[in-house]
Amino acid sequence: MPSPGQGPIGTIDIGGTKIFAVVYGPDNQELGRKRRKTKAKKGFETVLDRAVKGLRKACEDADLSLEDLRAVGAGIPSPILPDGTAVVAPNLGWENVPLVPELARRIGRPVYAENDCNLGTLGEYACGAGRQAELLVGLFMGTGLGGGIVFRGEMIRGASRMSAELGHVIVLKDGREAGCGQHGCVEAYASKTGMANKIREAVAAGRKTVLTDKCKGDYGTLKAGALRDAYHDQDEVAVEALHEACEFLGLAIGNYVTALGPDVVVLGGGVIEALGEELIGRIRDAARRWAYPPASFDHTDIRFAGLGDDMVVVGAREYARQCLAGEPDPT
Amino acid sequence: MPSPGQGPIGTIDIGGTKIFAVVYGPDNQELGRKRRKTKAKKGFETVLDRAVKGLRKACEDADLSLEDLRAVGAGIPSPILPDGTAVVAPNLGWENVPLVPELARRIGRPVYAENDCNLGTLGEYACGAGRQAELLVGLFMGTGLGGGIVFRGEMIRGASRMSAELGHVIVLKDGREAGCGQHGCVEAYASKTGMANKIREAVAAGRKTVLTDKCKGDYGTLKAGALRDAYHDQDEVAVEALHEACEFLGLAIGNYVTALGPDVVVLGGGVIEALGEELIGRIRDAARRWAYPPASFDHTDIRFAGLGDDMVVVGAREYARQCLAGEPDPT
Repeated sequence: MPSPGQGPIGTIDIGGTKIFAVVYGPDNQELGRKRRKTKAKKGFETVLDRAVKGLRKACEDADLSLEDLRAVGAGIPSPILPDGTAVVAPNLGWENVPLVPELARRIGRPVYAENDCNLGTLGEYACGAGRQAELLVGLFMGTGLGGGIVFRGEMIRGASRMSAELGHVIVLKDGREAGCGQHGCVEAYASKTGMANKIREAVAAGRKTVLTDKCKGDYGTLKAGALRDAYHDQDEVAVEALHEACEFLGLAIGNYVTALGPDVVVLGGGVIEALGEELIGRIRDAARRWAYPPASFDHTDIRFAGLGDDMVVVGAREYARQCLAGEPDPT
Repeated sequence: MPSPGQGPIGTIDIGGTKIFAVVYGPDNQELGRKRRKTKAKKGFETVLDRAVKGLRKACEDADLSLEDLRAVGAGIPSPILPDGTAVVAPNLGWENVPLVPELARRIGRPVYAENDCNLGTLGEYACGAGRQAELLVGLFMGTGLGGGIVFRGEMIRGASRMSAELGHVIVLKDGREAGCGQHGCVEAYASKTGMANKIREAVAAGRKTVLTDKCKGDYGTLKAGALRDAYHDQDEVAVEALHEACEFLGLAIGNYVTALGPDVVVLGGGVIEALGEELIGRIRDAARRWAYPPASFDHTDIRFAGLGDDMVVVGAREYARQCLAGEPDPT
């Protein structure tokens, strides 16, 4: 009989636009994979059905059925409570939905769900750019700014199980409003949503940018690729928004160096994937400037994420194995 | 033969104005104690001589000599590097001084030194208001704003060994200048130094306050007791400064709830000792307002420190025992 942590593990990453399902074997080898659109607008039940169908297909690739899975790990863009409730997932339109019970009912196997950025950080710790880090901070700049902390191989989720919401820490009290309703959190500046607000203001003030045509005036749909092209074309409005995002992302990194002294900070997300090489010097300079005491920054290595789109499913696999091994408690 | 963590432990807490030395027996019972003035202006060597003399006297109280001590734990208002250097202690006028080597040479026993706020948090974890906390954040509002994090009984000091500098995290980018040279860190508002700057500005703008007489116009010497009296007399300038300090301290707590989700936050320091009861409601309200997601705040308990002036020596004792037991590495 295999040990509790052994056996095939199914994983699901439910994002705002796409769902990944990957099945891993006992030695963590990939056995099957399926990618589908999320179709979030069709609602919670439909999205879960689509996710489970994706997982079933990934199992079929591996000549397995759902029943063969030892357990399923799931990554969701929401804090997840101990009872399996997804608290608030703006990208999916979910609020206080019974995520884990409904997934477990459909799959018939134990389901361990967790915030996708926490899992992404765990994935990078296990197999990516954060391997061996004692204290790893992950920051993922896309539509929002997500984050996670892994200390000695374990996610820090706090007493509320809703941490580490690293993008929602206030860095400019009473500053710009963010999607979360707060004013002056890092995400209000260092995210596509934050940049869209800055660009909107610039356009309202009469400035021109190629991005207006690119997103047909709806800056909320801004793609990282469009930002990259505009940056390369030295579009002033785009450059200013991206440089402001770098300044705030660097400030956030500096703050986490001051407070926690991570040995490694891993950066990922759509904006970093599109423009990381161009922006990393600026991000690093800002982080160095804001860390205290200044010399503390020399002990932190800032790296790009190594697993790309797989970081969440890899983290979900690791988390499911940790839960099966009994530490930490399963959700 | 006693185990490495056993035997009497000497402790020293070197503060800006006073030095505490306490000797503890194998069962952590107090055997002797001595309190002296620091006389920081006389310089590094003299302060160390005074500290060691204090420790020797505390040993004499216990019919012990320095040679009988298994080890000495020392708390210093500075980050301490692995080689025992005290990096920067503004209250003592020290910069990059060879603290541990010089103390060890004078005492002839192993010396384990650490930042006093980190040790204070460890002390509160071991025997004070933070007992049993899985993740404990300590915040100490006095001349500055110090902090510490204890996770599962161990201080988080990060890769630099200079964390957790919780008062130096930026919360109002490009805001008021603090003693550390940064602009907009928590300490710039939530500390006696920060309040002194606010009061100075108010007076320069023509406002009156009883504090001008109390500190003979030198607001840098403001005592917590004077602030308390002025607060009770509803001195408007004092009340505004204290309320601003509460707002920023609460914001900092909210940020740490967002990022880390501590089960307990312990508050201490001179200002809290003098006015904690009057201010705690306001601090708690601010923390609740700034935590994200809002419900995460319900899982964090905010408490007053329980050990008073002893928190650093108790933490120093615990740290020395941890070092002797081989985990973590001695400095």
